[in-house]
Amino acid sequence: MSTIPKIVILGAGYGGILTAQRLQKELNYNEADVTLVNRHDYHYFTTHLHMPAAGTDSIEHTRVSISKLIDEFKIDLVKSNVQEIRLSDKKVVLQDGTLSYDYLVIALGGEPESFGIPGLSEYAMTIRSINSVRLIRQHIEYQFALFKADESRTDRLNFVVGGAGFSGIEFVAELADRIPKLCKEYDVDPNMVNVYNVEAAPTVLPGFDPELVDYAMDVLRKKGVQFKIGVAIKECTPDGVLLATGEEIKSATVIWTGGIRGNRLVEAAGFETARGRVKVDDYLRAPGYDNVFIIGDNSLMFNPEGRPYPPTAQIAMQQGVTCAQNVVSAIRGKEMKKFVFSNKGTVASLGKGEAIASAFGKKYKGWVAAQLKKLVDIRYLFTIGGIPLVLKKGRFL
Amino acid sequence: MSTIPKIVILGAGYGGILTAQRLQKELNYNEADVTLVNRHDYHYFTTHLHMPAAGTDSIEHTRVSISKLIDEFKIDLVKSNVQEIRLSDKKVVLQDGTLSYDYLVIALGGEPESFGIPGLSEYAMTIRSINSVRLIRQHIEYQFALFKADESRTDRLNFVVGGAGFSGIEFVAELADRIPKLCKEYDVDPNMVNVYNVEAAPTVLPGFDPELVDYAMDVLRKKGVQFKIGVAIKECTPDGVLLATGEEIKSATVIWTGGIRGNRLVEAAGFETARGRVKVDDYLRAPGYDNVFIIGDNSLMFNPEGRPYPPTAQIAMQQGVTCAQNVVSAIRGKEMKKFVFSNKGTVASLGKGEAIASAFGKKYKGWVAAQLKKLVDIRYLFTIGGIPLVLKKGRFL
Repeated sequence: MSTIPKIVILGAGYGGILTAQRLQKELNYNEADVTLVNRHDYHYFTTHLHMPAAGTDSIEHTRVSISKLIDEFKIDLVKSNVQEIRLSDKKVVLQDGTLSYDYLVIALGGEPESFGIPGLSEYAMTIRSINSVRLIRQHIEYQFALFKADESRTDRLNFVVGGAGFSGIEFVAELADRIPKLCKEYDVDPNMVNVYNVEAAPTVLPGFDPELVDYAMDVLRKKGVQFKIGVAIKECTPDGVLLATGEEIKSATVIWTGGIRGNRLVEAAGFETARGRVKVDDYLRAPGYDNVFIIGDNSLMFNPEGRPYPPTAQIAMQQGVTCAQNVVSAIRGKEMKKFVFSNKGTVASLGKGEAIASAFGKKYKGWVAAQLKKLVDIRYLFTIGGIPLVLKKGRFL
Repeated sequence: MSTIPKIVILGAGYGGILTAQRLQKELNYNEADVTLVNRHDYHYFTTHLHMPAAGTDSIEHTRVSISKLIDEFKIDLVKSNVQEIRLSDKKVVLQDGTLSYDYLVIALGGEPESFGIPGLSEYAMTIRSINSVRLIRQHIEYQFALFKADESRTDRLNFVVGGAGFSGIEFVAELADRIPKLCKEYDVDPNMVNVYNVEAAPTVLPGFDPELVDYAMDVLRKKGVQFKIGVAIKECTPDGVLLATGEEIKSATVIWTGGIRGNRLVEAAGFETARGRVKVDDYLRAPGYDNVFIIGDNSLMFNPEGRPYPPTAQIAMQQGVTCAQNVVSAIRGKEMKKFVFSNKGTVASLGKGEAIASAFGKKYKGWVAAQLKKLVDIRYLFTIGGIPLVLKKGRFL
């Protein structure tokens, strides 16, 4: 162990970036070594991925180089894949090396949860990274090109989105906006294209106000989305999906947005998990390890009513701020702060110019909600990168 | 048979459009019924297809609605596929109907010639229509997206262009121009990408001046093209190509440009053909059928040295003009005109800002030749659509 403590942060998503930035600000010179480990040299805006996935916005509006967000004189950046977390050794094994830590912040992203539905991990695509959304975007456009080369394959014009939570609804809205453009580009009759949204739960956007849910479904139906709500996907095959109703939807494109679970590395580290997530204490620490903090997709916390908070960007960012404070307090031997989630509201985009939002006890829809969505995006860019990042990545449409 | 003769033109490519436009101009009111049959409602610029195929220009710069080129008050336009030419009945069977004719102009496009190489028609793509180039463009970009989803598949970054004639060279040049942009867009190291041009003949661009050929190869090598000249493709497989040398190139993308043959419908009509092409008389008429004219890809004519003219846009257009004159002469009982090819020169594009050309006994290369190429394109647009078409479709980069 070196004379100054080593802090290792795994993952540069919402939680990891906020932790790193706050540590960079709080720590005095030579007070600690901070290393941020990330698979890519860029940070991406997970809540924006549905747009490049559908092809309605560019990849470059969806990511930023990490070196633009942190000061590399103060924080070491290691681009590598994490292979293993060795709690007993206080080491992290990377694809190309090993890091030892005194304090560890696990801010790794979650993984798609397929709920054991056969074929889903083989044949469905998921919206979870820059690479995955590039694949989805190109796959969709390729179906149009393939269809024009063999017009008997009308199933190539069927698109199935599994899951009607946040990601599912926001993606299906963008896809519905994109279809007319693809039809024009490829001389395809829009009536031949089918966009299905299949959800096993009895409603879309669970947790949202029913009036807003109705509004959202109405907007999406008008854009051409066909809902199958309260219908589970029984199996995903190379030819499409089989539904619990016995119906088969033939499709070469299934996008699964049905949920996420914790990262398998966390389970493999030996923590007790529920769907891959670890119940952390009030200070965001893993049970039994006072020097290990878990935030974001892999942390499990309960609201005052005893229900788990869903893993969102908003909670990950707030956890990042508290986590950084608590790591500094631990180093300084000061008292740590309990994490309290402060709900700033929720906005779900419904494609161009449309959204629904609940914030400050009020409901918003349509144009106003769409402006709120932009505000949330811009505020985030400002938080992590100031005005230069807002100007570079912000969409002012 | 109606009281006025019926003229049917099959195909609205270079030859067919020129024939239709000249007939429209020459024929008096009620002198004949003219019907133009085409599979699509647009005419496309075959000599420009290599650009949208590589993704370096748009589809909309490569086609024009036929209704913008002909006067539908004077010529009937039928959008359909030709199924059969019944010479004995003077009928043409379409996918959705039958047309009878007094004069027939066969201006259908040719088909890719695979020279019996196994697997080529199954696994290789060809540059021959708007739909086929959209497929090629999307297929190429999809390989980059797939590679980023599974970086072990480096073969997805190998691209094989079979054939180093006009189409092969012009396409491989555009592809080489496009690769750096795709690499940037997908965060791929350009050194991982391989573009191969494989040609069985001992030289690229046969018929071109050797000095210009050397220049062309030099330009393309600098753009990263790897040549395998004098090497035949023995087989095309789902995994790539096997060469006559025993070498295998792993690739998910094989584009075959090795030659074209006549349309199978022409052979099926009962004409004697050589590689699907019919040796026409000096007046462009099919042997034994004074009322059937064959122009473009399906006609076989010999130059004064006894060698067959290659099927080019230039000869098809000139044939279209003579064909229209001769049909009018036939109707009016006047003497027909012999077709004489007038070589206006040849330009091969080598990608952005580069080309080689032979014209008026002179050789041109580099920037000057690239300007000549643009001039040829613009002159064609002007010929068929006047200044409005030049302004709408011309590329003035």
